[in-house]
Amino acid sequence: MIAIGVDIGGTFIKVGLVNEKGKVIDRGKIETIKDNPKTCLENVSKVILELIKKNKVKVSGVGIGMPGLLNNGTLIESSNLKPWLGTNIASVINKNTHIKVAISNDANVAALGEATFGAAKSANNVILLTLGTGIGGGIIINKKIYDGNKGQGAELGHVVISLDGEKCGCGRNGCLETFASARALIRQAIKEMELNKKSYMWKLVDNNLDNVDASTPFKAEKHSDKSAKKVIDNYVKYLSQGILNYCNIFRPEIVLLSGGVALQKANLTNKVNKYLKDHYYGLKGAEKVIVKTSTLGYDTGVIGAACLILLK
Amino acid sequence: MIAIGVDIGGTFIKVGLVNEKGKVIDRGKIETIKDNPKTCLENVSKVILELIKKNKVKVSGVGIGMPGLLNNGTLIESSNLKPWLGTNIASVINKNTHIKVAISNDANVAALGEATFGAAKSANNVILLTLGTGIGGGIIINKKIYDGNKGQGAELGHVVISLDGEKCGCGRNGCLETFASARALIRQAIKEMELNKKSYMWKLVDNNLDNVDASTPFKAEKHSDKSAKKVIDNYVKYLSQGILNYCNIFRPEIVLLSGGVALQKANLTNKVNKYLKDHYYGLKGAEKVIVKTSTLGYDTGVIGAACLILLK
Repeated sequence: MIAIGVDIGGTFIKVGLVNEKGKVIDRGKIETIKDNPKTCLENVSKVILELIKKNKVKVSGVGIGMPGLLNNGTLIESSNLKPWLGTNIASVINKNTHIKVAISNDANVAALGEATFGAAKSANNVILLTLGTGIGGGIIINKKIYDGNKGQGAELGHVVISLDGEKCGCGRNGCLETFASARALIRQAIKEMELNKKSYMWKLVDNNLDNVDASTPFKAEKHSDKSAKKVIDNYVKYLSQGILNYCNIFRPEIVLLSGGVALQKANLTNKVNKYLKDHYYGLKGAEKVIVKTSTLGYDTGVIGAACLILLK
Repeated sequence: MIAIGVDIGGTFIKVGLVNEKGKVIDRGKIETIKDNPKTCLENVSKVILELIKKNKVKVSGVGIGMPGLLNNGTLIESSNLKPWLGTNIASVINKNTHIKVAISNDANVAALGEATFGAAKSANNVILLTLGTGIGGGIIINKKIYDGNKGQGAELGHVVISLDGEKCGCGRNGCLETFASARALIRQAIKEMELNKKSYMWKLVDNNLDNVDASTPFKAEKHSDKSAKKVIDNYVKYLSQGILNYCNIFRPEIVLLSGGVALQKANLTNKVNKYLKDHYYGLKGAEKVIVKTSTLGYDTGVIGAACLILLK
């Protein structure tokens, strides 16, 4: 069985031909046209049809991963693709290609991909958190996506862990996203740098705060920088408390981290796993939950989206 | 089809013969022997066998609802029945009665009962919160209990909504339980009464703080008591924020409230539903979630436990 996986992002859209072993056989990539979903989805459809023609294959369907909140294939909430709101992405692609289409949120399909071919292959129950500009969430229960009634759940970044905390992009205050996204980590690092002009972090960014990224505090910590350690300890605490919440709700076997901050791999997960252990995984006597980083990397979105078809 | 439902509580154990319409045909009740689970479960088994004999029926199985954290039928965490830890309740009852046994957490079975025969009959996806001494949680997905890997999830009271908040019985800080349980409401009422000696709440409790219960602030609010209103507004805010978290994770059709505070019915749910509406149910454009109180009342536990068998 072969399927098409489409990974729609705010800047690029990746399309891949994926076989039943989760291997990307061939691929295409186009720019996202933010203000014209119609033309953009026509372009995506062309890439799909070209890939099929070029490789002389029959595909079982097109799977799509899409950032934002969907309702039966229609985008109803998005931070990056506002002009796409109201577009039924699945039905447009289906009309253009005459191929069966399945669609889900990008974090959901990433979780499905990792649970099928990646870092969580061994687990039946998985929570994935994408630690990027925001925090996306994917829930896998018994190897299947769980995305809530009408696909409107699994917004794991928008769960308040500190009421009356900082305003979140979603309108609430103190969401996990405001503490544990890459953006939140950068903000905390900058705040700490401003308090301590001697921090090694200044050296790493050539004294320019615009150069601070999620890796800055982790690099500085290796040079025994106290400010960096403080930033990371704090970040690990908030992220871990968010994970402990999901342990108590879902008790997954594996929690997967992806996105910018997860590039720190063991530097991050060793600390988080220690925090979880020190806090009894949420409840004394409860099953152990292991935190890992995702492994499919660049192709996660495409492979995960294809899984929407491959696993049917 | 007829099943036995067993509702194990910290003080009493209720046993009922339940038919396929969710009606309790006959019932028994014994005291919980806290320090001797073996004898206690022998007594439960006797009640089960007597009910069957007396009513001359064949039962399809015994369903049990049990407070605390279970692992494959064994109690591994409990606040009220510590001497029962390590007891495999399901297997003891099965040995004594030679009837098939299914067991789950008490809040899970209450949710299942309400989703099958009670206030959430119309819904496929339901979250139940029991607002008692603590907060229990039940999750129904597509009319089935979801209790997490090895039955160790759905601990919806032990999700931190205010990091660094007050210590919770579970060991963490700022869990929903510390803000929205009946005990938390009483604590907040007492705190407010101590600040305002003129509050009408003092009258309601004969100037004795020991008489304060979850109904006190609700009764006083009807007499335009400002302190009571403050307590309730604050309580509704925290409870609703917890519910909004579950909206974003599960997007259930219905959130059910049961336990002491839920006895306020519309007095409570009108306020919570308004709060949810004012906060877009967690995310703009997302599906509406309705908050109701449970309706099975005294028999919830027994009927819900029987559903573990009736729905098989």
